[in-house]
Amino acid sequence: MLGNRYETQECSAARALELVGERWSLLILRDAMFRKYTRFSQFQQSLGVATNILAKRLEGFVAAGLMAHRQPKGSGGQAEYLLTQKGLEMKPAIIALTAWGDKWVRPGPVVYRHAADGRPVELQLRRAGDDTPVAVSDVVVARRPASRRPKRSTKGRLA
Amino acid sequence: MLGNRYETQECSAARALELVGERWSLLILRDAMFRKYTRFSQFQQSLGVATNILAKRLEGFVAAGLMAHRQPKGSGGQAEYLLTQKGLEMKPAIIALTAWGDKWVRPGPVVYRHAADGRPVELQLRRAGDDTPVAVSDVVVARRPASRRPKRSTKGRLA
Repeated sequence: MLGNRYETQECSAARALELVGERWSLLILRDAMFRKYTRFSQFQQSLGVATNILAKRLEGFVAAGLMAHRQPKGSGGQAEYLLTQKGLEMKPAIIALTAWGDKWVRPGPVVYRHAADGRPVELQLRRAGDDTPVAVSDVVVARRPASRRPKRSTKGRLA
Repeated sequence: MLGNRYETQECSAARALELVGERWSLLILRDAMFRKYTRFSQFQQSLGVATNILAKRLEGFVAAGLMAHRQPKGSGGQAEYLLTQKGLEMKPAIIALTAWGDKWVRPGPVVYRHAADGRPVELQLRRAGDDTPVAVSDVVVARRPASRRPKRSTKGRLA
């Protein structure tokens, strides 16, 4: 079994992938975000994933604060897994992967739209405060300025 | 060993994850994109990943058209793995994961800047032709219009 940690990597993408980089993780989040699924049985039916894997992923999301677990009172109520803001904000990563697959593999079955007016929504690379789109080839990394260096907190802020 | 296919999922994000969703894949692409690494030894040193896994990932990227393999002529030349346009365009997915990790885990060591002027670059959700940022909670999916439904080609267009 492969681990899910990237201890040697001082990198926010690695930190994110430790929480959502395992098999099925991002597709479970996709179903929660865009199909509004909340129940184990809904995810299981949608994905056809083994129940032990699905349980492990959902528990991992709850432990990491991407989902909250709610057990309705009374008999017969099914447990619900609800996205937190922390979980919801993984949406751009899903949209980026979808846009890439649409372009480079084949156009998929869905498009992204604004909930209010139905107009298409897309991810764009921009300089802050500048409306000119930026080409992927023009984006480089630089060391974060010292004043904004990472604090050594290991606790994720929960939604 | 877990597979890397999501056969039951008719979804472009699933298609993308079949090519870049395995352990270490996105971090290898990160190193190729932002550190300009091209050699096996550079990736191995950066990531500390087992050589058999790294070889498998790089071969997978070449097979999928995300990288091109170049063997310099003459003795002693090390093989190079060069990102194609198809590989380079995975950049927004890496940036989305980094931005999420920066916000929800802890600020990481790097920021993204424009190569020409050094100004910060970020991913934004926008309606096409509209400069108002869109909140993640306002993005929904809709069925792709019939005229733009997927063609049944299984060949990815190479860069």
